[in-house]
Amino acid sequence: MLVLGVDPGLTRCGLGAVDGTPGRASLVEAGVIRTPAGLDTSRRLLAIEAGLEEWIRRLRPEVVAIERVFAQHNLMTVVGTAQAAGVAMLVAARHGLNVYQHTPSEVKAAITGSGRADKQQVGQMVCRILHLDVAPSPADAADAVALAICHAWRGTAAERLEEAVAATPRPPRSWQAVAAVRRGLA
Amino acid sequence: MLVLGVDPGLTRCGLGAVDGTPGRASLVEAGVIRTPAGLDTSRRLLAIEAGLEEWIRRLRPEVVAIERVFAQHNLMTVVGTAQAAGVAMLVAARHGLNVYQHTPSEVKAAITGSGRADKQQVGQMVCRILHLDVAPSPADAADAVALAICHAWRGTAAERLEEAVAATPRPPRSWQAVAAVRRGLA
Repeated sequence: MLVLGVDPGLTRCGLGAVDGTPGRASLVEAGVIRTPAGLDTSRRLLAIEAGLEEWIRRLRPEVVAIERVFAQHNLMTVVGTAQAAGVAMLVAARHGLNVYQHTPSEVKAAITGSGRADKQQVGQMVCRILHLDVAPSPADAADAVALAICHAWRGTAAERLEEAVAATPRPPRSWQAVAAVRRGLA
Repeated sequence: MLVLGVDPGLTRCGLGAVDGTPGRASLVEAGVIRTPAGLDTSRRLLAIEAGLEEWIRRLRPEVVAIERVFAQHNLMTVVGTAQAAGVAMLVAARHGLNVYQHTPSEVKAAITGSGRADKQQVGQMVCRILHLDVAPSPADAADAVALAICHAWRGTAAERLEEAVAATPRPPRSWQAVAAVRRGLA
């Protein structure tokens, strides 16, 4: 599954494309969309939209994973971060892609096994998983890559449930008949 | 000046188009874009984008005024509100329109003369200014209309400065020469 991870931000919007299935992952591309702080916010969002459009058209991800923005995180930057995340969601939806959000703790837990791992531990595990000598840089690109691995490995609770239901062998007809009789349906 | 006011929100995004110059204003159109709470946020933002595109293409405003989102206002809804505001900014920028943000206090002060006016006072003044018997409804549409009047009347500090500079008669040449001599330039 090709996942595009997005670590939203106005100054640096991290992007990381990872091809993976639970237990394995390979890096497709990592980078950032930068917009100058002096530019009007509306023009910065337009630049972020253009960058995301270019990545999605070129790489054709199957799903977009975005870091969930919490108002509690940083009152000074939450509005800008939420606006960048909103533009990422919008571009994904325009291409018919489903958007999933993961919290930083979920990303850390998926990659290191602990939701409290520090940045260095996450970086080391990302390198090991992707067979890289050095972590993607800058940090926003690395965070987006970690997010994409997290989604490829964890998926969403709903997706896992669907897979579990699909993988469960159907009971034989005779057993279904017995169960129906017991429930008073036959 | 035709101003499109936007009171951003995921559930109800208020829109109000007003044609005005300081001291007078007339209502062009007021309404809301509604999106269902059960829909995925990315699809809600797509619906808001489509609604804004339609309004801007049809009414061709000269400027877009958006309520400034503060993280401190409501931690539960600030992320969704900021995302909707981000989409409004994006669509405006795409059409080459400048975006200005005003705080609720600025809107109240522009319309009633007091930044602490309550909703009812603002509503009554909006009706009087626009010669309406009843205020636009729902409240989000009325708020967007008030925002548009505020922008048409106040503009931005930068715009007012530009106008003031343009309106100031240039000093006569002889005076400029004297000033230049005084500054040691001639």
